Amino acid sequence: MKKHPLYIIKAGGHLIDDEQQLQLLLDNFAKLPCHNAEGQPVRKILIHGGGKLATRLAEQLGIKQELVEGRRITDAETLKIVTMVYAGYINKNIVATLQALHCNAIGLCGADGNLIQAHKRIHPKIDYGWVGDVDKVNTQLLETLLESTVTPVIAPMTHDQEGHLLNTNADTIAQTIAVSLSARYEVKLVYTFEKEGVLLDFNNEASVIASINSEQFNTLKAEQKIVAGMIPKLENAFTALEQGVNTVIIGKAEKLAKLLEGQAGTTLTHA
Amino acid sequence: MKKHPLYIIKAGGHLIDDEQQLQLLLDNFAKLPCHNAEGQPVRKILIHGGGKLATRLAEQLGIKQELVEGRRITDAETLKIVTMVYAGYINKNIVATLQALHCNAIGLCGADGNLIQAHKRIHPKIDYGWVGDVDKVNTQLLETLLESTVTPVIAPMTHDQEGHLLNTNADTIAQTIAVSLSARYEVKLVYTFEKEGVLLDFNNEASVIASINSEQFNTLKAEQKIVAGMIPKLENAFTALEQGVNTVIIGKAEKLAKLLEGQAGTTLTHA
Repeated sequence: MKKHPLYIIKAGGHLIDDEQQLQLLLDNFAKLPCHNAEGQPVRKILIHGGGKLATRLAEQLGIKQELVEGRRITDAETLKIVTMVYAGYINKNIVATLQALHCNAIGLCGADGNLIQAHKRIHPKIDYGWVGDVDKVNTQLLETLLESTVTPVIAPMTHDQEGHLLNTNADTIAQTIAVSLSARYEVKLVYTFEKEGVLLDFNNEASVIASINSEQFNTLKAEQKIVAGMIPKLENAFTALEQGVNTVIIGKAEKLAKLLEGQAGTTLTHA
Repeated sequence: MKKHPLYIIKAGGHLIDDEQQLQLLLDNFAKLPCHNAEGQPVRKILIHGGGKLATRLAEQLGIKQELVEGRRITDAETLKIVTMVYAGYINKNIVATLQALHCNAIGLCGADGNLIQAHKRIHPKIDYGWVGDVDKVNTQLLETLLESTVTPVIAPMTHDQEGHLLNTNADTIAQTIAVSLSARYEVKLVYTFEKEGVLLDFNNEASVIASINSEQFNTLKAEQKIVAGMIPKLENAFTALEQGVNTVIIGKAEKLAKLLEGQAGTTLTHA
């Protein structure tokens, strides 16, 4: 049997902070057709990041945000805030908005239904605190929901099966879920953000690279033509492609339909 | 076919604020047997209240809590806090704790999967703000989860299907869900809190009334022998019983197993 299509959409950080942009993405997401040209059902999942709300709330509460080598440390108080903002405020507001758009969304974090098992990050030098590295995705729960035409909306948190929630990178969650569901579905993974795609010139939105393979990525990286923030995103995206995800695309959130058709953004290709 | 048993447990407000008491309740909840003496599968749902965390957070953030005729008003800022605390912090920590106890919990609010449809409260004099009165429960979602042996953990929030989350009384949610699922399951609804049950003398835990019907309740209410806080709880509980819930019990959280067996707490009976 031919695998049915599944769209996994990652909504990037800055989007979450911009009410209008987020609304536009959710409109487009809700409107995605339920069937493709061949009449197959099309399933979808939305994965969202955190944005700046958590940082702002921490500031308001006077909770110091500790950075070690440029990375934020998730201490117990920060974890509490992240749980409130990511799994509570952002997740549930996205769900309520999608429900109003007749998309039957369900909000989940990685602890719900044992969705994403992880472990606290082990690092020889830095204690990242309550940060999780993903071990395993419970694909059965996602399949049950998807086949009931329920649309999962996933917050960037996991758990360690010992009672601890863990703050986890949303791009990594998108990649891991996409890889895990590739056995069952023909997965298109789309990382949306505020840029047109991978740009050759950061300041020129017209310089978007239509397609890129990992060799080209490595060359551009060596030539320092790809900005720092894009590197982990692209590494995540290439991992997804190499581990069996059919199509991986990076591009501008408001062009969601075009991105899925390969008519906008950057498509990752095999070397 | 004989209906299968379903236990619906409401975890009361004060419990949520007491880490040890909450842990004890979750231990007992996780340990409930999966099958009854007749070999039937036993399903379960946990519904939690809000506790004082939301009030404390509002104070820390300098958000004034407005009370009108003794009732808290949920303005936009308070709704934000309630969403973060109830659907985020409390709900996800309960889920992670239950997962560690090998109970496959999934945390939901009323917007998730269109679980609880409600409308903004209409009142001739008081504008309660973003407070919801329940219209309808999506029993199909709950049945799908329960029959997959997933245990719903429900936060006291609903939605209006127009994109708004609504702050909603947890006792009412417990009652409405219990009534809605009574068509399919033999429901035992247990309201747990810090007292032994309905007390004849508020200061004497030994004065617990083993069983009460609505006539007796009305008499005690008229004689002012039932304290103010218990009245809406009991009214909720009697509504559940009158609308088809098999068994309704009120009692001390730490005695959960005994409450379910009718060996502790107050059992509500038909007049």
